[in-house]
Amino acid sequence: MSGHVSQIRTAALVAVGSELLGTTRLDTNSLYLTDQLNRVGIEVVCKAVVGDNRDDCAQMVRSFVERADLLVMCGGLGPTDDDVTREVVAAVFDRPLAEDLDLTARLRARYAARGYAGAMPENNRRQAMVPRGADVIANAAGSAPGLWLEVDGRVVVLLPGPPRELKPMFATLVEERLRPRTDGASLLRVVVKLTGRIESQVDETLQPLYREWSAQDPPIGATILAALGQIELHLSVRHRSEAEARARLLAAATEVTGLLGSDVFSVDGERLEEVVGRLLASRGLTVAAAESCTGGLMTSRLTDVPGSSRYVRHAVVAYANDVKTTVLGVDPALLEAHGAVSEQVACAMAEGIRAVAGADFGVGITGIAGPDGGTPAKPVGTVAVAVAEPRGTRSRMFRFHGERDLVKFQASQAGLDMVRRVLQGHPSAPGSAAGTLATPPSTARPASA
Amino acid sequence: MSGHVSQIRTAALVAVGSELLGTTRLDTNSLYLTDQLNRVGIEVVCKAVVGDNRDDCAQMVRSFVERADLLVMCGGLGPTDDDVTREVVAAVFDRPLAEDLDLTARLRARYAARGYAGAMPENNRRQAMVPRGADVIANAAGSAPGLWLEVDGRVVVLLPGPPRELKPMFATLVEERLRPRTDGASLLRVVVKLTGRIESQVDETLQPLYREWSAQDPPIGATILAALGQIELHLSVRHRSEAEARARLLAAATEVTGLLGSDVFSVDGERLEEVVGRLLASRGLTVAAAESCTGGLMTSRLTDVPGSSRYVRHAVVAYANDVKTTVLGVDPALLEAHGAVSEQVACAMAEGIRAVAGADFGVGITGIAGPDGGTPAKPVGTVAVAVAEPRGTRSRMFRFHGERDLVKFQASQAGLDMVRRVLQGHPSAPGSAAGTLATPPSTARPASA
Repeated sequence: MSGHVSQIRTAALVAVGSELLGTTRLDTNSLYLTDQLNRVGIEVVCKAVVGDNRDDCAQMVRSFVERADLLVMCGGLGPTDDDVTREVVAAVFDRPLAEDLDLTARLRARYAARGYAGAMPENNRRQAMVPRGADVIANAAGSAPGLWLEVDGRVVVLLPGPPRELKPMFATLVEERLRPRTDGASLLRVVVKLTGRIESQVDETLQPLYREWSAQDPPIGATILAALGQIELHLSVRHRSEAEARARLLAAATEVTGLLGSDVFSVDGERLEEVVGRLLASRGLTVAAAESCTGGLMTSRLTDVPGSSRYVRHAVVAYANDVKTTVLGVDPALLEAHGAVSEQVACAMAEGIRAVAGADFGVGITGIAGPDGGTPAKPVGTVAVAVAEPRGTRSRMFRFHGERDLVKFQASQAGLDMVRRVLQGHPSAPGSAAGTLATPPSTARPASA
Repeated sequence: MSGHVSQIRTAALVAVGSELLGTTRLDTNSLYLTDQLNRVGIEVVCKAVVGDNRDDCAQMVRSFVERADLLVMCGGLGPTDDDVTREVVAAVFDRPLAEDLDLTARLRARYAARGYAGAMPENNRRQAMVPRGADVIANAAGSAPGLWLEVDGRVVVLLPGPPRELKPMFATLVEERLRPRTDGASLLRVVVKLTGRIESQVDETLQPLYREWSAQDPPIGATILAALGQIELHLSVRHRSEAEARARLLAAATEVTGLLGSDVFSVDGERLEEVVGRLLASRGLTVAAAESCTGGLMTSRLTDVPGSSRYVRHAVVAYANDVKTTVLGVDPALLEAHGAVSEQVACAMAEGIRAVAGADFGVGITGIAGPDGGTPAKPVGTVAVAVAEPRGTRSRMFRFHGERDLVKFQASQAGLDMVRRVLQGHPSAPGSAAGTLATPPSTARPASA
């Protein structure tokens, strides 16, 4: 059992874990692994999930190791009896396990450092067992080390399942150990994101570009994907010069922006909350939200971005009507006349939080997340969003589809997108929010604060 | 190549499609298929994705058909050249394809009925090709028929990939063809969830139960899973009587609770925010949070639950220190003396929001989500959480690991869990929050509001 892998072109992925064979969880690690592998030109030819069962796992290893130059296995490296990956790989490739005492010492130190009482449970020592000839891959974020093994001219990599452990480990591995084994060609991808259009519209608009790109050498690949509250266009090209590839994809993204205008909010994968944050921070502006049906989700998304304390200082979740009145100063007569879910109340909430927080932008969101509370005139999914800023207040009525959490997300997306459009000087760009608009495009009133 | 399958107990699933080997799409059909199969007691032992490539697909069929009594393949049944499943299955099992003229006639009729101009493209006739000995499964929602094949004592089923075609076809198949081949047993599952312990602790504590359960007839299966801020224990049992199985799993869950006490918060899969909501609603109590590092996430999670307007009325995101002072009434001297990330400030925030909102429970969360802002004494991940209620205020200091969004999530989980423990009368249960505690278990002060 020996041999050297001269070049790695293909990979097979196996996730180990019975919980991934149930009715709720999917192996999402494989998306990350694929992205990392594609970056250095390695193609994923198949992937699989197998349960925490020695025989099933062994059969999977035997058949999958034949399929590609590289086999990546995730999960099943924990300290318990149903963590079988290490033992199975050792058995299949006849590489007996031996305890790495250095690893055991590190596990004990890690256990003690975390302030647990008493001695480390003995079963944790299983994580220090290493198949003969395997290299240990350090895990900075958890106790299970990774393993790198070369057998019969192929590479087998074992990684822990938790994404926050696996991701940094694999990123390092790709750069340090895999990239040198590839032919130097890479796949570069950019993701263009947009709001305000539906998938089939975008697809039709971009047909001429698709044809142009596919005729180029090497061709630019394009995949369109409808996500919640946005459309993503994934552009990719294989290349040997990253600079040249990047220039080509940037040119392609620019062509897309030429056709879709200000509906495009990102040509480099940036999330909407990052775009809004960058625009605010670069101008020294602040934002404050008064959230009803979103329950704090929009502000939580804004604060997912590192450094957001520069532009988020204050927000209010005003779930109850009297909070809208007492805290945000919404006139009870407005609530009475138009109902809590109305553009008028959203505007008053936006202006109220802008004044209370002393922020440059105030956002008001009020709607019916469901499943109850809908009426024929205002069914579940009806949401009013308003943005108050120095030049005035704009509002829109939306009607979103889907379950409660989806309505919440789309409403938070609408709030962020309205702020973005104002910041970019396209507050009511043509086509914006098409497909979700329930009332005429926009109303504008002079600023009251 | 013949034989009859007397009983079907296990299944292997294969999705065919290169688009499922990229960086964005997952094979979600497998969740539906698994649910349908589990209902009639068929266990999924492995699943895989393979691209639209004849060799890769053939290898996958050869290795997967050995793994289980039933092989279900989805996708690759369309009319184009990269739809390879039909040909591959015919070749692997030596069942030559022949055109089913009846199917061709139906395809032509379907084509005409949809109002397309001209004759049906000839490549559509590929969909009328049937391996020798296979049964055709009608597809009411699309053009690709399914196929049912018995080879070497095993069943192979081919289904189209689009969910709206696959689902009704498979539901019918399960009832009419698979259920009669099972032993009449079904699989029932419950999920027990807990906080305050680490996976290896829980695993060691439950060892005696695992042994007891696995010796029973039929055995209860248990899988342990560490998720963010909680541990899940999935219990399952095959049964012929759902009522009896439910009683057995409930008894097993009760044994778990006997060993782990109030760390268990759910024995029926309920999420923590649902448990807290149910406890609050049933007693007519309300909660309000003052969130700093979580940026509204705890309140957003609370409001993910339908009907949460009964107990959530108001919350404040106090990201800036002066908001903590002006809106929540936190004494500036406390901020000066202990810093914003301290149990003292968390307590003052909890008491402040409780008073401002007129709520029964006030929660204060302040911490360092990162990646910047950490110090040697208070590194990134340090979070103080406090709960103020009529009997007093409790606080704890945590040190969480992971990226910004993970710190936020774990901090929101800690806030919800502290409220739950107070509501359940175990505010400082032994073992609680072990693994994350950075300071002595708890401090209690008399209520000031």
